[in-house]
Amino acid sequence: MPSNDSLARLAAVIESRKPANGGDPQASYVARLLHKGPDAFLKKIGEEATEVVMAAKDVDHGAPAAKLVYEVADLWFHSMVALAHYGLAPADVIAELERREGTSGIEEKALRKATGRASEEGGGQ
Amino acid sequence: MPSNDSLARLAAVIESRKPANGGDPQASYVARLLHKGPDAFLKKIGEEATEVVMAAKDVDHGAPAAKLVYEVADLWFHSMVALAHYGLAPADVIAELERREGTSGIEEKALRKATGRASEEGGGQ
Amino acid sequence: MPSNDSLARLAAVIESRKPANGGDPQASYVARLLHKGPDAFLKKIGEEATEVVMAAKDVDHGAPAAKLVYEVADLWFHSMVALAHYGLAPADVIAELERREGTSGIEEKALRKATGRASEEGGGQ
Amino acid sequence: MPSNDSLARLAAVIESRKPANGGDPQASYVARLLHKGPDAFLKKIGEEATEVVMAAKDVDHGAPAAKLVYEVADLWFHSMVALAHYGLAPADVIAELERREGTSGIEEKALRKATGRASEEGGGQ
Repeated sequence: MPSNDSLARLAAVIESRKPANGGDPQASYVARLLHKGPDAFLKKIGEEATEVVMAAKDVDHGAPAAKLVYEVADLWFHSMVALAHYGLAPADVIAELERREGTSGIEEKALRKATGRASEEGGGQ
Repeated sequence: MPSNDSLARLAAVIESRKPANGGDPQASYVARLLHKGPDAFLKKIGEEATEVVMAAKDVDHGAPAAKLVYEVADLWFHSMVALAHYGLAPADVIAELERREGTSGIEEKALRKATGRASEEGGGQ
Repeated sequence: MPSNDSLARLAAVIESRKPANGGDPQASYVARLLHKGPDAFLKKIGEEATEVVMAAKDVDHGAPAAKLVYEVADLWFHSMVALAHYGLAPADVIAELERREGTSGIEEKALRKATGRASEEGGGQ
Repeated sequence: MPSNDSLARLAAVIESRKPANGGDPQASYVARLLHKGPDAFLKKIGEEATEVVMAAKDVDHGAPAAKLVYEVADLWFHSMVALAHYGLAPADVIAELERREGTSGIEEKALRKATGRASEEGGGQ
């Protein structure tokens, strides 16, 4: 199944858990996060990013790579809860990634950013 | 274009930037990250997660939602660099998300996790 | 020298780097962070927390503990830049830590927090 | 009371919660974190750093600064749990901060780091 449909379908499930759509905080973890409001799921994004980093370090030292997949899934999942809260969807993120990949290439885009930052950071010498 | 193809194509670009595939750290930001090794891109995941949180807070206070899309794109992008380094792909993450959505539902999966944590945390009372 | 004086003296140096106190963004890293505004140093807090986690994982696998000390110093340092920006000082943080340790003990304070969270998280079962 | 004594006393409390020192995971939050091992408290560092960032953003938008003090206290507290696990103390962090402030000044130290990073990041142009 195309990942396209997978992410869109998952986004639809999350959408249905919004309080305004009848999501029940007693019955659903996502509904509970959305009900609590931004701080609840934003905190999870920070936490899950940390778990991704820890899992990667563990893989560096011999843990199975599946652990990293699991944590990246958690990170992306909670990102999608945040997107839903703000009326956005994974398709918006993917469109942004495509846009960067456009005419000049992702690489150039990222480089431009790094270059700007580098000259800023080096400005005090 | 299906997001499916988008993520897979982006993953292929990242793959081509690996040192072993001839990626040039002088010319490409991704090649440079991969060349520096895990700490370089793992640090970016922590940094980009923080930027997602800041952007969301700004949207809460009136900033355009596009800012959040931009930062989530950065977070997913650097997650994909990490996946590539460890021989993984976005398809693995999407398969994991599908797996959770399977028989018992994402919700139940997440709840199970929250329940376990809750009883652990509450264990000391 | 008592850490008391150390942290207070470091806070005074940071204070002197504020734009309003004549800190020069061309000459000083702290002045530059403060000049750029909150997003600049808040992003660093997320990044340095990630570096603490990576350093700890490295120590788990044989790296010298000095690496962790270095990264925690970076984390606390950037926390102090944030405190300064908001008109706060390390003494405020230490007073808060003392307050928790007070009548009922840090442990109980932390437990109370964990208990609240646990019952919240477990609420959906 | 000097912050010196405060942090050292808090470190002593944490030290006493180590499993090897008889800390009881059933009765103490810190003992529970230490008993669970590094991932438990490292994850908290990532989470608390995120809460610091969220609190700062809230202060930017009118919340009382006390919220930031509270979250920085949580961040430093969990850093101290990590330090204890690795046989380190806040005094080591403070010594590192003093060292940087030494002969060449904190500013120069930090600048040197930023300069190195800038030239690295700008290396691809």
